Amino acid sequence: MPGLCGFPASRAERAQLAMVLEVLASPKPGNVDRCHDYAETRLEHFIVSSLAARSPLEAAEARSAGLGSLIEQAVRATSCHSGGNTHFGAFLLLIPLVYGGGVEEARRAVEETTVEDAVAFFRAFALTRVRVNETDELDVNDPGSADLLRRRGMTLLDVMAHSSGRDMVAREWTNGFVLCSRGARMLLEDPEPRTAVRRLFLSLLADEIDTFIVKKHGPALAEETRARARAVLEGRQPVGALDDWCIAQHVNPGSLADITIGAIYLALEEGWRWDS
Amino acid sequence: MPGLCGFPASRAERAQLAMVLEVLASPKPGNVDRCHDYAETRLEHFIVSSLAARSPLEAAEARSAGLGSLIEQAVRATSCHSGGNTHFGAFLLLIPLVYGGGVEEARRAVEETTVEDAVAFFRAFALTRVRVNETDELDVNDPGSADLLRRRGMTLLDVMAHSSGRDMVAREWTNGFVLCSRGARMLLEDPEPRTAVRRLFLSLLADEIDTFIVKKHGPALAEETRARARAVLEGRQPVGALDDWCIAQHVNPGSLADITIGAIYLALEEGWRWDS
Repeated sequence: MPGLCGFPASRAERAQLAMVLEVLASPKPGNVDRCHDYAETRLEHFIVSSLAARSPLEAAEARSAGLGSLIEQAVRATSCHSGGNTHFGAFLLLIPLVYGGGVEEARRAVEETTVEDAVAFFRAFALTRVRVNETDELDVNDPGSADLLRRRGMTLLDVMAHSSGRDMVAREWTNGFVLCSRGARMLLEDPEPRTAVRRLFLSLLADEIDTFIVKKHGPALAEETRARARAVLEGRQPVGALDDWCIAQHVNPGSLADITIGAIYLALEEGWRWDS
Repeated sequence: MPGLCGFPASRAERAQLAMVLEVLASPKPGNVDRCHDYAETRLEHFIVSSLAARSPLEAAEARSAGLGSLIEQAVRATSCHSGGNTHFGAFLLLIPLVYGGGVEEARRAVEETTVEDAVAFFRAFALTRVRVNETDELDVNDPGSADLLRRRGMTLLDVMAHSSGRDMVAREWTNGFVLCSRGARMLLEDPEPRTAVRRLFLSLLADEIDTFIVKKHGPALAEETRARARAVLEGRQPVGALDDWCIAQHVNPGSLADITIGAIYLALEEGWRWDS
């Protein structure tokens, strides 16, 4: 039966597929998965957001607007449920990757962003409930930010560079999508595709400090999460214990989930057979 | 945030939403849900099938082909995974409902089906692994069936009428989508939308003989399933015990899952707020 149809046939469809394969992978310690919801944000919000993302992803594939405006479109299109922010960070990765069609082209696209892309991005940011550093002068809730961006001549890539020290998703813009690319290679090399996403997620969790955890809880808890994931990866602790600990501590590695989506997307672009 | 965007904005999107809300509802005794996969068919197959169904559902909304051909398109489009048949029965309901835009219009559309619709439907059927009565002279695997249909002048509605005694999905074509409509009313009247789908499914299971169970296991086990669901509905047995029993007996009430999808779709057409 597989192969009778062409799904996913487009970059937009591969991006949607990446979004659902990420959230359906279980267990993903601390994050929404098949076995765990948050009170406000549930599995169905992520799935519905993946359905609702189609038009903006198709717009990105058609390059019908700039990256900032496309990100804003994606955030608006997926604000159709009561689950709050589901895929904001994922769109920061998927929109340039889908727009470009590959890492090299995405890298060129982010280099060509403008001040108006930055302004549109801040409008998108203001739509989400993403936690921000409230003392930052580039406050997304401050209507003066647009003026400030224009006065300083900051492009969207400049904004990402400004955030890259404390935000691993922004950092992907400045380093050429390094983590997404590394994750894609892991998926392509994994001999068991059906469970590869959860192994990728755990591996990222054991290797990287999730900057979303840092923003929410500070660096110590983020480092403890990484160390505990390392213990799971090395077989010194069961994954269920890490999941329980994350939930008790309100630790959700949201940025690594975004990176995972970017990695799945790039793997699918390389022909990864998720269902084989 | 909800209301900023228009998803679901079209009949096709409402049909996709119905497909994902059905499969994500848990617990649904005996069927694939958040907590249960079959070895061959897993939750992600149903979700991916829902993503892949977009084009044929949009074709149904645009009335760009006849119902038989549209059903064939939907089955082909969703044969993109290794999970076997996921939504064949659902498409038998969704395609005419989306084509029509409402129950009355769907009823007229099925009355206007032709012999060529029937021939296309049999091609679609042959693509699935749906269990059929192998002694039936209208054998879907028999290349002679198309000739037989043409000789007898059987339309797709005639084929459904031929099957309606032993197939509750086919029966919906002949009785004006009665069960789907009743299910939609239950959803619209349920005070707790977020868990309404699982209550609808259990209620259908307690009231109706699932004809898919009859075909697979015979009428006695189907009736026992109904009686056990009745005991759960009346609080005489925990739902988990029914789920365990279904799984042990290999009882999966697949036709009632299809009816549930049709019901969710009709409720969404009436403005049902699934996330409120």
